[in-house]
Order: sequence, then structure tokens, then C-alpha cells
Amino acid sequence: MDYTKVWLNYRPIEGAQGKKHCVCTRESGAVIDNIYAELDTAFAAMYGEKPARGLTDGAVKIDLFLDKTMGKESYRIEKSDRTIDIASGGQEGLLYGVFELLRRMQTGTLEGNVRLEKKPSNPLRMANHWDNMEGTIERGYSGMSFFFENNEVIVNERTRDYARMMASVGINASVINNVNVRTTAPWLLTERYRAPLIEMAKIFAGYGIRLFLSLNFASPVRVGGLDTADPCDEKVIAWWKETCRDLFENVPNFGGFLVKADSEGEFGPFAYGRTHADGANMLADAVRPYGGIIVWRCFVYNCQQDWRDNVTDRACQSYINFIGLDGQFADNVILQIKNGPVDFQVREPVHPLFGGLKHTNMMLEVQVAQEYTGQQRHVCYLLPEFREILDFKTCNGEKYDTVKDLISGKNYGYKNCGIAAVVNTGNDANWTGHDLAAANLYGFGRIAFEDTLTPEQIAREWIALTYGTDEQVMENIEKILMMSWPAYEKYNAPLAIGWMVNPSYHFGPNVDGYEYDRWGTYHRISHSAIGRDRSSRGTGYAQQYPEPLASMYNEIDTCPEELLLFFHRVRFDHVMKSGETLLQHIYDTHFEGAEDVEKMAALWDALEGKIEPEAFARVKERLAFQVEHSKEWRDRINTYMYRMTEIPDAKGRKIYE
Amino acid sequence: MDYTKVWLNYRPIEGAQGKKHCVCTRESGAVIDNIYAELDTAFAAMYGEKPARGLTDGAVKIDLFLDKTMGKESYRIEKSDRTIDIASGGQEGLLYGVFELLRRMQTGTLEGNVRLEKKPSNPLRMANHWDNMEGTIERGYSGMSFFFENNEVIVNERTRDYARMMASVGINASVINNVNVRTTAPWLLTERYRAPLIEMAKIFAGYGIRLFLSLNFASPVRVGGLDTADPCDEKVIAWWKETCRDLFENVPNFGGFLVKADSEGEFGPFAYGRTHADGANMLADAVRPYGGIIVWRCFVYNCQQDWRDNVTDRACQSYINFIGLDGQFADNVILQIKNGPVDFQVREPVHPLFGGLKHTNMMLEVQVAQEYTGQQRHVCYLLPEFREILDFKTCNGEKYDTVKDLISGKNYGYKNCGIAAVVNTGNDANWTGHDLAAANLYGFGRIAFEDTLTPEQIAREWIALTYGTDEQVMENIEKILMMSWPAYEKYNAPLAIGWMVNPSYHFGPNVDGYEYDRWGTYHRISHSAIGRDRSSRGTGYAQQYPEPLASMYNEIDTCPEELLLFFHRVRFDHVMKSGETLLQHIYDTHFEGAEDVEKMAALWDALEGKIEPEAFARVKERLAFQVEHSKEWRDRINTYMYRMTEIPDAKGRKIYE
Repeated sequence: MDYTKVWLNYRPIEGAQGKKHCVCTRESGAVIDNIYAELDTAFAAMYGEKPARGLTDGAVKIDLFLDKTMGKESYRIEKSDRTIDIASGGQEGLLYGVFELLRRMQTGTLEGNVRLEKKPSNPLRMANHWDNMEGTIERGYSGMSFFFENNEVIVNERTRDYARMMASVGINASVINNVNVRTTAPWLLTERYRAPLIEMAKIFAGYGIRLFLSLNFASPVRVGGLDTADPCDEKVIAWWKETCRDLFENVPNFGGFLVKADSEGEFGPFAYGRTHADGANMLADAVRPYGGIIVWRCFVYNCQQDWRDNVTDRACQSYINFIGLDGQFADNVILQIKNGPVDFQVREPVHPLFGGLKHTNMMLEVQVAQEYTGQQRHVCYLLPEFREILDFKTCNGEKYDTVKDLISGKNYGYKNCGIAAVVNTGNDANWTGHDLAAANLYGFGRIAFEDTLTPEQIAREWIALTYGTDEQVMENIEKILMMSWPAYEKYNAPLAIGWMVNPSYHFGPNVDGYEYDRWGTYHRISHSAIGRDRSSRGTGYAQQYPEPLASMYNEIDTCPEELLLFFHRVRFDHVMKSGETLLQHIYDTHFEGAEDVEKMAALWDALEGKIEPEAFARVKERLAFQVEHSKEWRDRINTYMYRMTEIPDAKGRKIYE
Repeated sequence: MDYTKVWLNYRPIEGAQGKKHCVCTRESGAVIDNIYAELDTAFAAMYGEKPARGLTDGAVKIDLFLDKTMGKESYRIEKSDRTIDIASGGQEGLLYGVFELLRRMQTGTLEGNVRLEKKPSNPLRMANHWDNMEGTIERGYSGMSFFFENNEVIVNERTRDYARMMASVGINASVINNVNVRTTAPWLLTERYRAPLIEMAKIFAGYGIRLFLSLNFASPVRVGGLDTADPCDEKVIAWWKETCRDLFENVPNFGGFLVKADSEGEFGPFAYGRTHADGANMLADAVRPYGGIIVWRCFVYNCQQDWRDNVTDRACQSYINFIGLDGQFADNVILQIKNGPVDFQVREPVHPLFGGLKHTNMMLEVQVAQEYTGQQRHVCYLLPEFREILDFKTCNGEKYDTVKDLISGKNYGYKNCGIAAVVNTGNDANWTGHDLAAANLYGFGRIAFEDTLTPEQIAREWIALTYGTDEQVMENIEKILMMSWPAYEKYNAPLAIGWMVNPSYHFGPNVDGYEYDRWGTYHRISHSAIGRDRSSRGTGYAQQYPEPLASMYNEIDTCPEELLLFFHRVRFDHVMKSGETLLQHIYDTHFEGAEDVEKMAALWDALEGKIEPEAFARVKERLAFQVEHSKEWRDRINTYMYRMTEIPDAKGRKIYE
């Protein structure tokens, strides 16, 4: 198979060729084998020599050992002149320690004596793959699935490289199939797919990754042949217990299930008058004997709204559906909450459930797959967004009240919790469609493991690993990455109003694309104003936040400007903090956004000769597309606003009529 | 097979049961066999007795004979007390005469002594089926194809009933495959599909129908294995000659080809720097020895326009592409011209080529398939539209200058010319999806044969044949039909601006659906005005018409109001002839249109018990849908206009914000 090595692209270290290392450990097993293999690959490339096994004269000794005082995934690295000790409470921690060691060696950040100790911030660091059994990927922009093809499970060399890549950034759980569990996917639970799943789970286990599946809540009917899937029915309970026993006893290191229920047409407990808690807890009972976990998604709303209904507000619904259930979920259930209340727009307020739930395990769900952020044809480095989300103060009255405090369990005692991302991989040769999109996958893993890293730190790590440490390369690509989310936000739908996108496939501008549809996402632009009022005078969404957030969001004057049109209906002549009108602000940002992309393309072009030619050309081509497409965004949004208002750009730039 | 008999739904004639008839003729052959079969079916149902063959005492004698002074498709019926003579110059004319006889018997319009003579107005009366080899139908709203399935040609009992149905209204040519000739369709020319095509052509011939195929201009490459399809290349010419010889010599009554070239991605002579005339004439040479005809479509335009380009005008392009070729086409080439310059919108001006071309055979192309007119889920009886088109005075300076005079050949000597319709059949049990849509198919055939019939006459014929002659049934359904096109026009895109429809599938309202797309169909609505200027001050489209039309269309004050927004950009505060503003006119017509549909539904409901229950229920269900969907049209258009202008309805009706 021919595919790139992404950030595991080990390359010679200048001045260190022939440097000898040896590896010493009393541990053994699949994880240790993988550590050896990684060290072999890396050192052969970096130093021209694989490390010796066992103590060797004249070689730097890498000593791997367990320290039972530490967590299984934590590690400590102590480097002196001739020795590098890596200690952990478990083999997984040793693996993570080795990856950090290699990262530091490769990027030149292991100079002198070093002592560092790391404990993963989040207990669960999970990849959600929306891969379908036929081989397609829902919201996939990097080719087809490498997990499934023609309704079969694929296990091959790429499975191993996938696991290795994910482990290298600390991912410890993967849900391999789409949350919409259709066609043959419900049968993943059964004997039919058992053999390859066991094989895959073994590979995953060797990299510290637990295999999870998405399940279909109707499985007792669809797969089990029962006449009901009522979570309170004895037959149904027995069926799930037996199905889970069979799975957990046979599939090594199996983790549990991700569930999308009563959402966008997926079946759920509502069909039987049961609550989400009834449904989730029944499953939790079935998986508890094996240490299994049920991850239950909170993405529940009415997707059959009439656009003429101006009362119903989709943004309110996830909170309303779950807040009353706080405290009712079993301890091995985790609610997985999207970062915002709607759906992965380029800008949304942080979901009010994070501050609302106090007695419920929570996970944050972000989207590394660029569904609404350019589909890996635009560069859009999302770590600045993730950083903001994690740092958001929910003001929920707890001692530690940021999102990262709540999902990591810092405030609630590190129970079942963590962070998940809908990821962006596919069978494209470069894994992520756009080469630069790999920074998002890398960064997601890194920030999930160390939730205090900055986007800049992560960017520089990733650039150095992927392209080497040439300072211009580092600087230009860091600039491109750091400019990209703000630029995308500028030329996208303004000020968090979102959804000005082509329906269904969500690519390209379309101001009215969802405006008269059933999805509850309306901008309601008229000649003089734009937006929906979600204050206490409108749909009341702002009141789902604790004070002082509720009051802050409730008023145009105190609402953060970047969220202005999420919370308020605002006149086009409203004066922004900049002194410009709202309309002029929209024009300005759209011109700026497209200009920023031209700058990004120029920054890339300046690296010609410093980047491997094929990799250079791939990114150049996508940036050229982005230059044109960002203009299309600019022009369509600006023209729409101009036609609506008939007020020209104050700076006289070209707006098409 | 289980499908309805549509208008061939013969039923007992009150007070005439047991009435005896006999048929006498010296003619024989397939057409005569079909005449016998039709008389048997009809008389058994109407009189309870099949006609005797040969002179029979006490029976009304139906005498069928040839009169070589008449045209082959003309007929004369002379009815006296005991004798009905039907004479024609050909067996096809006898068949048409018999269908007219039966129609009159069934509808009670053959009282007393009758003498009538009919000559078809148009030499060619052609059905265009956009059926694909896989069995789908492009713009088909009545199920799947009954000509093709899984890349095979289907010939069965329904093929015969299809031919019979078409012959009963005078259709004499059918193009059975889509003008977009893709997948396996180019191979229809070849041996691969020869056997079933011969079988089908024989059935067609028995009903006076010539079989035509759509061809792919790239066939010499795609099918013939040549390295070019250049119409001036000797190899290509030879290939077409041989292919046509093979087809015409083996497929009985084969008519020729319909060609979509250099249009919407279909291949054509432009690829080799040749003209449409080069392409068409080369094919015409190849089919001439067999009396074959080449029908060449004029639907040629740039479908890759940038919405920001406000100079290019799709409406101008068909005329520009063909007017310079007038006189250059062979005499067995016919240019097939859509009724309007764009694409089958509910209202368009008549295509300027009709008045422009003076030395070229022309056919009018209309669309019976309701692509933009409700897709057979809305009732939209199109004969009033066809009537207007046929009667349109082109002012081209000829003695007979209406569209019907030009396409029938009345002005140019009845050469190769006529009328074609993209038809609305499929394998649904009722043939046309909506039972009432059969009136459009029926009416197309009837008006093509007799181009002076009124929509009301045709409606009453069709109703009587389909549902019987109960006066309330006749009256209510006639009202529904006659209200339906005006109603649809009212709640559709206003005043011929068109295109406020969902992209691709063309169903349901979407004001901006095509606004920023590549198809050249822009309304350019802004706060104060709507429409594109196609006058001499704008794109100049109005100047494609002869005077006085050019001047009439050129000015807002003289432009017919129903075409106002096709030709002009008009301020919303423009005062219409009614005294209302343009904006208020839009509001009014949209409220009226939806109200009209409620009236139509009530008219149908009043017929409960008078219509066969299943047929009643089918139409009732579709009308109930139309009631709701016309409100969706009303509300989306009105809301869009309201948001744009912020001027409320003067009559205080509900417009959603």
C-alpha cells in the first residue's frame, strides 16, 4: 500500500548519524513489540542505526520500566547523558513515553538533561469514524473507508499504521463505524463480523486503543428478531446482555458503544415512551460486567421544523432534552455533547449542557472532519477553536468550571469522561485529503492528551515532524495554519449566524440554502436586519446559561461580537465596536477573508524547493482552489447583503449586483 | 399487466345495447388488424356486441376504403342511417378515422347524419421520450420506463397499448430514448439491440407510428471505434452511411434520429470546428436514401455561466447559435425549437427563432412532462399554453405568420415540419402519475393533429372519454383543468421571471435556488427591483424579434404584463395596469393561486360517487398535496419578497417573517 507517513515521517538528524542506542526492558507483549518496532523505524531513519536490544556498550541506554505508583497511561522521561529512563504505570504509558521521546528527538527538543512527567488530561480520548459498511464515509473528504468495503471489515497493514498513528498522539479509543448505523452495520455486533473485528481489536490493543462500535438501538428487532426494542422489556434486556457478553468475551479490549438515538431519524427509546436514561442505563447494565462504557450522544432535536414556525429553536433542544435527566445516568454512561448547540458551524457558543449537567459524565464532541469548514479543500486549522472551547468558563459555580475541567473530570474526580472527535481520515494516500488537515488530527490527539497545549505549540510540533525544522518552513506554515480558521470565519456566514451553505453536502456558499428547509437553522435576513432573537425576548436560548453568562448573552451590547448573530436579531445599521455598521463589518470581513487566503497561498509558494515536490504541489493546488472559492464565498455573501440593503460598500470595492 | 385504459376506457352507451354493426373493407394488413381489434374492444364495451366482419343484414355497415385523392393520414367520415363510410388515402388515415368514429360514438357527438373530413395539421406529430437504458426517465414523474429496463429493450403487451394510445390521438412518430444518449444507449444503433427494436417497430407500424432514436454524435468513436467523430471526415461519413443503411434496411418503418449536440455537455460538431449545419447535413445525407429525417435540437447555450457575469444572457443564445445558419440545412433536417428561449418555464415568450428562420424546416418542442409545472403532483393542464403558443403571431412578414402556420408548413408548403412533445408516460398503472395529467398527453396529440381545437373542446372530449358524460363530472373537471395552468402560474415565480425552483430536480419553491448557479437564469432581486433588463438597454434579447414585437417588448409600458419580468428589471413600486404595485401584484397572485387550488380540490370532492372510487381517491390525494404545496409556494415567494422590501401586504394577509 502506498500512503504517506504523515507526522511519523522520521528523517535523519543532522550531526547524529551513527549514534548508538540500546533498549532495555523486562516487559513483553504486543505493546512492547510495537515499541521496539517504532524505535527501529525511527532510529534507523534518524540515526542510521536501529537500537540494540539489551544493554550494549557505548550505546545510549533507553530503559523502559513500570512504576506502579503511576497511572497506566502516564509516563515519566528522565534523560541524562547516557541514559533515558521511561517509566509508567502501564505498557500504554511506556508507548506514549516512547512517542514523546521520538517526537522530541526529531524536533530537537530533547537537549541536555530532561525530566518530564505527563499524565493524560482526559481519561477517554476517542476517535469517532463515520464510516459506512459499503466503504463510504459520511462527511468524509479523504477518500473511502479503510475499515469497511462492500459490507466487509478490512484488516490489513493500514489498520496497523492507523493504530500506530493514533497512538502516537495519545488516542486510546476508536469507534470505527458511523453513528448512523444502517445497512449491514447493525450486524457488527454479531458472529457475522466477529473474526475480522477480533483481528482489528488485537492490533488496536497493541497500541493501547480500545475498539468501540456504534450501535443501532433497534438491534433487538433488526438483528435479534424480537418484536420490540423497548429498553424496559425483559426479552430486550436479556438479548442485549447476551449480545454484549458474547462480544466482550471474544473481542479483546473491546470498549463499548457509541449511541445516536432518537436523532435525525435514528431509532431510540422515545418509540416506547422511555427516556434517554432508560435506554442508556439498560445498555450500561449489559456492558458493566466487562468494564464497558456507553457513550450516548446529546445531538437530539426536531429535524422536521416548518420554516414558518418562528417559535421553535433548534439551539434550545439538546439542553431541554437532557437537562432534566441530570443524575439519572449510570456511572458507565457518558453523555457526548457537541461543542455547540447546533452543529459544528465555524463559530458557535459553547453548549450550555456543559455548565448545566452536574451529576452526569460528560464528553466533548468536536469535529476534526471539516464538514462545515471547507471539507479539507480549504485549510482550516481548528486547534484555536478547540483551545477556546476547552478554556470556556461555564460559570456553573464549581471550583473548576471550564469545559476542560468538566470533561477531564478535574472537577468531578476523573470518572468516565473525556473528549471525542469526528475524525477526518480516509484511504487517500495522504490520509486526510488536504495534507495540512493532518494538523487537525494530530492536534486533536495532542490537546486531548495535554489540554493546556497552545495551538501554536501544536502547530510547530506538527510542522517540524511533517516537514522538518527549517525555520522558514516552520514560520510560514505556522502562519498559514494560524490564519486559517479566522480567515475561514471571515468569509463564511457572518458572526456565528452559520448555515449559509449548500444543503446536504455542506460545501460552498448558499445564503438561503437552509433558509426555508426543515432543519431549524434560519437567518431570517430582511432589508433592515439579520438574525434570530435568542434572548429572553426571543426563544430564550440565552437563559440556558448560568449567570453572568445568561445576562451577558442576553443583550446586544454585552454579547461577544463574534457571537452577535447567534443570539440576536440586529439591524444592519447597528454600530459595531469598530465604529463600522454591521453591514460594513460583513463586507469588510468578507473582503479580508478572501485576501487572507491569497496571503496564505503566497506563504506556501515561498516554500517551493523546501518541501518535497509532490507534497508541495498537493497543497499548492488546494490553496489555489481555496483562493477562488473564498472569493465565491465573499461575493455571494456580499452580493446577497447588498441586494437586500442596497447600501454599497463604504470603501468602494466591487460588489456584484 | 395491470394498468388503466386512460381515455380508451370504453363504456356502455345508454339505450344502444345490442345495436349491431358490421365492418367491410378490402384492405388488409397490420393496421387493418388493429382497426378490427379496436372496433371489437370498443363495440363490445359500448354496444355489448362486437361488429361482424363483412356485410351483415340488420347491422350498421362500417365501410373502410381507400380514396387515393386523399392524403395517407387524412380521412373522411360519412354517416347516414345505416352506413358509416370511412375513406382515406392510406390505412393510417382509416385508423385515425376509426378512432374519431369511436370517440364520437362514446361521447355522443355523432348524432344524425354526419359528414366530416380531416387532414392532420402537422406532418410530424412526435413524442419525445427521455427514457434511459437503465429504466429511469429523465424528468419522468410516472414511474419507470416501459421501453427499457436494465439496459435491455422491453417489448410486451404494454408496448402495443402504448402505440394504440398514441395512435388514438394521432401521434405518428416516437423517439423512444432520451436526448442525452448515455451509458448503453449509443448501442441502440447496432446489432446489439436490433431484434427487440424490429419487434417494437413492427408494432408501431401497425399503429402508423414511425420509430425514431436519439443518437449520440460521438457514436463513430464510442460505438464505431473510430478515432474521430468529425462530420467532415470521410471515415466518419462512411461509418454513418453504413450504420444507417443497416438500421433502415432492417427496422421496418424506421424514421430517423433526434439529436442533441453541443448542449449541456453532449458532444457535437463544435469539437471539430464544424457547424450545426455540417453535423446535421452529414447525417441527413446518410438517412436520405431511406426517407429518413434528422431532427436537430436548438437547445444550445452556455451552461457554465458565472453568476457574476451580467452581460451574457442565456435567453439570447439559441437564436444566436442558429439564425446565421438559416438556409444551410438539408431538406430532411428539421430544427426542433423549444416553445420559449429558456426551458419550459410556466410562462416564457415564444422563441424568436420561429419568426427568424425562413428557409429552414422547423418543429415546435413543447413539454407535456410537467418538469417545471408540478411534476404530475400538481394539476396543470397545459393546452391553454399550447394554444397561445400556436396562435402567436411572429410578425415575420409572411402571409401566414403564426407559429402554427410556420411549423405546420402552411406558409412554407408542408415540408418536413411539425410538433414534438417531451411526453409524460411511465410504467405507473395510470401511465401519467396524476390521472389528470393524461389530459395533457391526450391534448397534445389532438392539437398536433387539429391545430385549431380549443383547450376547452379538448378537455371536454378527454373528460367524456375518461370519466363519462355526466354533466357535473364534465363541468367540474373542465373547470379544474381550465383553472390549473393560471393557478400554477400565479403561485409560481411571478410574471415570467421563472426559475424560483429547487435546483436539479425542479420541484418546489426556492427563490434563490438557481440564483448563484451556472445556468444563466437569474432574477437579481434587490430591495427595490426585480428582473433582468433584456431590452435594447440591457441584453438586447427583445431585438431578436421582428417589429412591432421588438418595440413592444422593449418598453415596460407596452410589454405584455404576463411577460413583464422576463423582459425588464422593474421596481417593486411600479404600478401595474390594475393600479396595484408590482409587489402587491405578486402578493395578490400568490394568495389567489393557493386559493384557486382549494377551489379545484372542492370541485373534485363534489364528484365523489360519480367517479370510480379508486380513480377518485388517486386524484383526491394529489389535490390534497397540491393544496399544501401551493401554500408553500405562496409563503416562500411572499416571505422572500416581504423580507426584501419590508412592505407588508396591503390587505393584511399573513406573510411569514
